[in-house]
Amino acid sequence: MRSSIAQEIQYPCQYDDGIFNIAIDIGGSLAKVVFSPIGSNRILFHTVETERIDKFVRLLHSIIESYHGGDYSTTQITATGGGAYKFYELLSKEFANVIQIKRLDEMECLIKGVDAFIHEIPDEVFTYNDQDGAQNVLLPNGSAHSPKTYPYLLVNIGSGVSILKVENAETFSRVGGSSLGGGTLWGLLSLITGAQTYDQMLDWAHDGDNTNVDMLVGDIYGTDYNKIGLKSSNIASSFGKVFQNRRGSLSKSTTTASNSASSTTSHADIAARNKKFKNPDVCKSLLYAISNNIGQIAYLQAKIHNVQNIYFGGSYIRGHLMTMNTLSFAIDFWSQGRKQAFFLKHEGYLGAMGALLSA
Amino acid sequence: MRSSIAQEIQYPCQYDDGIFNIAIDIGGSLAKVVFSPIGSNRILFHTVETERIDKFVRLLHSIIESYHGGDYSTTQITATGGGAYKFYELLSKEFANVIQIKRLDEMECLIKGVDAFIHEIPDEVFTYNDQDGAQNVLLPNGSAHSPKTYPYLLVNIGSGVSILKVENAETFSRVGGSSLGGGTLWGLLSLITGAQTYDQMLDWAHDGDNTNVDMLVGDIYGTDYNKIGLKSSNIASSFGKVFQNRRGSLSKSTTTASNSASSTTSHADIAARNKKFKNPDVCKSLLYAISNNIGQIAYLQAKIHNVQNIYFGGSYIRGHLMTMNTLSFAIDFWSQGRKQAFFLKHEGYLGAMGALLSA
Repeated sequence: MRSSIAQEIQYPCQYDDGIFNIAIDIGGSLAKVVFSPIGSNRILFHTVETERIDKFVRLLHSIIESYHGGDYSTTQITATGGGAYKFYELLSKEFANVIQIKRLDEMECLIKGVDAFIHEIPDEVFTYNDQDGAQNVLLPNGSAHSPKTYPYLLVNIGSGVSILKVENAETFSRVGGSSLGGGTLWGLLSLITGAQTYDQMLDWAHDGDNTNVDMLVGDIYGTDYNKIGLKSSNIASSFGKVFQNRRGSLSKSTTTASNSASSTTSHADIAARNKKFKNPDVCKSLLYAISNNIGQIAYLQAKIHNVQNIYFGGSYIRGHLMTMNTLSFAIDFWSQGRKQAFFLKHEGYLGAMGALLSA
Repeated sequence: MRSSIAQEIQYPCQYDDGIFNIAIDIGGSLAKVVFSPIGSNRILFHTVETERIDKFVRLLHSIIESYHGGDYSTTQITATGGGAYKFYELLSKEFANVIQIKRLDEMECLIKGVDAFIHEIPDEVFTYNDQDGAQNVLLPNGSAHSPKTYPYLLVNIGSGVSILKVENAETFSRVGGSSLGGGTLWGLLSLITGAQTYDQMLDWAHDGDNTNVDMLVGDIYGTDYNKIGLKSSNIASSFGKVFQNRRGSLSKSTTTASNSASSTTSHADIAARNKKFKNPDVCKSLLYAISNNIGQIAYLQAKIHNVQNIYFGGSYIRGHLMTMNTLSFAIDFWSQGRKQAFFLKHEGYLGAMGALLSA
């Protein structure tokens, strides 16, 4: 499902001043760490769920032990993301012996990180759509295939969405965002399907047929709606078939009667619903809905700010082909081919990478 | 919960040519009928769910019987919405004896209807926000309180969303839309909560606390994120707490082990989840998420098209105060007070009203 992501890349980023820098980016859902062992010319990447902050702290200790001989006195931590503030006391206590724990602004780190990935790291940026049938890897800036990068929009999709306009490496602003992000997709899907992992939901999405739950233009019109350019296969209403068809599903329930006025739901009702609306179909529909919506908002912001290139980053994407294809499709559909979506192989590590480079 | 909507208004719209005009607008979820009994100076409004098209057909027959003495030969039906096409054969068979069934374009009817409601019908247009604490009824165009109407944006929220830019009564275009509309809210909520009616879900939304499922800026940062103007109470990720907290919820399940790799979900798991994430909280969160999202997209389109006034119509709104407040808040928040949201008492009947006036 997911393209292989190097958890380690070759890149000479460490000054040999004897200081071991560890950069962390603690978001709402995921905590990321990026570091470069002294003298190694490598960068290593790891992720832990933020709710398991104790595990993340143990990982940081083990990194200092394994890659720097446990020498806390020549180790420095640079921290960004909301968790750099929320967990500052915990980090200060756990890592009392490091040189310092330096807190850096999230947006500044994001931009520094994405700029480095775009301009410095080879084979990092790519376009994707399923017409090409494959990732289309772009070479670093300066090559024949590279886009003119500035100005660009960075759409960072984590638990929520932030949209930043980047004029150049020094000048940027947050122009918008959305609360409908990765947290919304995984939260709603885990409520409905009971899935325990991201990969389970992505696997289901791959196998699903969204037209069993989505209301298409053709379901309303019987045909295309040519006058305004909508095809019968366009999605008119995500999940639009569900409430409409609820009676059919519930009449099949042969067990105890539903008590829909109670604020808990009978198991028999939910079982009947789940039989009618299958997890794979639900997963594909919501993945389409959230990705399309982010793509549309990104396009509208790009239009308002007169920007041609849109980079999608953040842990929501997870290198998942269907997600990238939907984001690409949305940009292409709304802009009528005038704007271009780009992706990054290390999309989840923009902030942490920026923090490392700021050290 | 819902402000009272007159199912009948005083309005002289019928030419006395002896023809009884019935206007219908069949959408993806709801079928609407609007008519004016000859010589009555009244307009009457009714709605039936589209899935119960047989009931809608019986309603139309009974209207012809009750208000026009069953005289089909002097009755004309004007029909709009996708169902005017999808159900044309059924309607032609059922109403073979009427003068004609005239099909009219949905967008043209919407504009004709909203223009009539804005300019002709007294006490129809209002603003709403909970700071005012009440609806703020505006008088018809020409009064001191009326807005300069043209150009305006019409955001029609039914199963899905259509956004139209109206330059004047004759000139308009569909500038955008979204598949995240009423069908998405009711579909997802009925999947999760088992609710059987709109009113049940709206009642729950009224009693809920969305902060039990939404991830706030304060949940990530521990404080405000002042640098980019986000308060700790702002929603960073709708449903962002759900996937994060799934382990806690499922470990409470004392019955059979979950099998998350299966494409059906164990009842015990869902019961445990439903205990942790309550229906009222889920309903409020999703109502906020969908309404905020529509408000944001409407604002971005208004900015792109340089339009000041945004009218919200369509059956999604249902006169529900929390919905209108959220739409108003979104327009105010994103535009920093520069754009204004307006509502219509007969918000669900714009297309049907336009079809009646086209007769």
